[in-house]
Amino acid sequence: RIDGERLSRRLAELARHGALPGGGVCRLALTDEDKAGRDQVVRWMRELGLTVTVDGIGNAVGIRKGQEDGPPVMVGSHIDTVRTGGPYDGNLGVMAGLEVVAALNDAKVVTRRPLAVAFFTNEEGSRFQPDMMGSLVYAGALPLERALATVGIDGTTVRENLARIGYAGDGPLGGPGKVHAYVELHVEQGPVLEEEGFTIGAVEGVQGISWTELTLTGQSNHAGTTPMRLRHDAGYVAAEIAVFARRLARELGGHQVATVGALTLFPNLVNVVANRVVMTVDLRNTDEARLQEAERRLFAFVEETAAAEGVKVARRSLARFKPVAFAPALVARVEAIAKELRLSVKRLPSGAGHDAQILAAVCPACMIFVPSVKGVSHNVEEFTKPADLAAGAEVLLRLVLELAR
Amino acid sequence: RIDGERLSRRLAELARHGALPGGGVCRLALTDEDKAGRDQVVRWMRELGLTVTVDGIGNAVGIRKGQEDGPPVMVGSHIDTVRTGGPYDGNLGVMAGLEVVAALNDAKVVTRRPLAVAFFTNEEGSRFQPDMMGSLVYAGALPLERALATVGIDGTTVRENLARIGYAGDGPLGGPGKVHAYVELHVEQGPVLEEEGFTIGAVEGVQGISWTELTLTGQSNHAGTTPMRLRHDAGYVAAEIAVFARRLARELGGHQVATVGALTLFPNLVNVVANRVVMTVDLRNTDEARLQEAERRLFAFVEETAAAEGVKVARRSLARFKPVAFAPALVARVEAIAKELRLSVKRLPSGAGHDAQILAAVCPACMIFVPSVKGVSHNVEEFTKPADLAAGAEVLLRLVLELAR
Ligand SMILES: NC(=O)NCCC(=O)O
Ligand SMILES: NC(=O)NCCC(=O)O
Repeated sequence: RIDGERLSRRLAELARHGALPGGGVCRLALTDEDKAGRDQVVRWMRELGLTVTVDGIGNAVGIRKGQEDGPPVMVGSHIDTVRTGGPYDGNLGVMAGLEVVAALNDAKVVTRRPLAVAFFTNEEGSRFQPDMMGSLVYAGALPLERALATVGIDGTTVRENLARIGYAGDGPLGGPGKVHAYVELHVEQGPVLEEEGFTIGAVEGVQGISWTELTLTGQSNHAGTTPMRLRHDAGYVAAEIAVFARRLARELGGHQVATVGALTLFPNLVNVVANRVVMTVDLRNTDEARLQEAERRLFAFVEETAAAEGVKVARRSLARFKPVAFAPALVARVEAIAKELRLSVKRLPSGAGHDAQILAAVCPACMIFVPSVKGVSHNVEEFTKPADLAAGAEVLLRLVLELAR
Repeated sequence: RIDGERLSRRLAELARHGALPGGGVCRLALTDEDKAGRDQVVRWMRELGLTVTVDGIGNAVGIRKGQEDGPPVMVGSHIDTVRTGGPYDGNLGVMAGLEVVAALNDAKVVTRRPLAVAFFTNEEGSRFQPDMMGSLVYAGALPLERALATVGIDGTTVRENLARIGYAGDGPLGGPGKVHAYVELHVEQGPVLEEEGFTIGAVEGVQGISWTELTLTGQSNHAGTTPMRLRHDAGYVAAEIAVFARRLARELGGHQVATVGALTLFPNLVNVVANRVVMTVDLRNTDEARLQEAERRLFAFVEETAAAEGVKVARRSLARFKPVAFAPALVARVEAIAKELRLSVKRLPSGAGHDAQILAAVCPACMIFVPSVKGVSHNVEEFTKPADLAAGAEVLLRLVLELAR
């Protein structure tokens, strides 16, 4: 009932907005490229007969009427990307939602409950932190006003960007009782399904995420004349921290990952000791106690290393999510439906944050993963085979039909 | 005979061009600020009766006629600064040269040999590498055409910037036999003179300088989903290198310094493993064999660490200068003159590169240092006491008179 070609075609068309010259997509949240992508998706929603509302943080929800009123079964994800992203991350969940609607339209099926297809604002958190911003506001976990006041990496606010692209709406937010259930289809973005030869992932939950920004302030000085013992080198301290993050991941083992993805030196000149560094540390663990241990050890190392170099530290939490477990009954249904469709399926946790984990606080929620070739994502070479995209959408369709009766 | 107030006044006036809001100076080579500073200095040269020529790389030389023709005694330095620089680095040598001329004009002294006051283009190497570019071309150690083709950190060439600011001249270059002797007064930029209580430094030579740019290419990937074992994290390798540079300085001891002053990550986002880093390593040693050992060990570490992470390395030398010894007779005269003036004096090497080390290849050359408060330079808080500036200029004046008879 899913038309895999139609799904792939929509994905390819959406990927044109913000397409990078060498392949891949750059559609950072609330940029002009994001606006173009949003306009396209909203157009498709309307063509498919959905009634679209946009809320105060720019989330768009397209509703397909059911035989009865009441909270809809929601399918969704996000369409913003990282700076060097691929065409599937997030986009798949939204395009698969449209494909589910198209398939039901074709078959002239009207479900008992309404259906909703949603895309949430700024899931990536590349330009504005925290990530999952739109779903956080939708679910009532982040005050709208605080989200709107967020200043991004280019110094502009969420509020002014929403206004500029015309996506500051007044549609209703979600919250408890507003959504019957939430299902998100997504590429795994990691290597497990492909390496182990599975087509479908039944996602049990999302690991905990801790993002910290560190600002290190030392003293700029001459690289040739300043004896090592007199240096207050913010760049050196930053390097020690990045090396320690790797050690922490090794020592904690298991699911622990640690990444220093952003690091900027000032004045950033060959012969000047850096007086300032702004850097981020991304720590994740499926186990909250372990994640707290990682934070504790990291922060202790930062304080100690900075103090030894005479460098000051300011610390700011950019995002902090506890591990989330998806609704066990839904996870079981993903697994069962995949088996009914003779698709190989594995239960696994998600390494990436997703809107589903935020929705999970206000309704039963779950996710369906399909394999990422070579486990590559947040990379212009992100790829998932069309057959796998369609397989994932097929599982989604069946689950939605069950939930909406 | 030196008018310390007049010297300080000129330094303060020059520091207005490119003045930073919070103090300090940003007058990167061949920028509009540099042009403004150059215009000011050339105006002063002409007011003092000097005949000014500008050569093909933008070095300006002001000549004061002597009783005889022939190669001049040259006094000089540079007026470009780093991005967050102070008012003395380089500028002092040029302003002191003007003050020497002013003092001789006041006293109506005509020397036997001509005098020259020069400022050389792009000594700092902040915007265009190598540093000491103008003096290298002047001394015939760097072909003019290669220097002009240099691409700077903002992607523009030396040639187009020289044309834009109107300093692509056709005056004569230097080279062997063209300069009788070269003397440069400079702030120490390090802590030794102040810590040990000396007013004058008789600079014995300049340590060897090795600047390397490393480009590390890994694979961008998702910070949450990519297991540590599958990462090709260019940012992590860069951090290991920066930490190793510090270890190298500690292990080699003595005069060895090592600095990672510039380091840029791509795509530089919190949740994306960096796929590319461009970074610099600045290594210096008074001993050439030790400096070569430092380079060998650094490069071996880079190759090994990058290979272990599956990251590719491209290496480019940005500048390489062997240690230079100044003319022993001139160093002895600096020391003796300081003593005659009852100024405390210490022989010491220079940690920073200077135009004098380039001129040393074509004529007897030496340097006079005055103390830097707290040893701070390449920093907006760079400061030298006015009395010390005047003391240094006094030594300069005496030495110039001796050399020019
Ligand atoms: N799915 C995804 O890439 N989310 C972005 C937030 C994260 O870094 O996990
Ligand atoms: N004197 C000075 O700061 N020169 C710049 C080149 C160097 O880094 O030594």
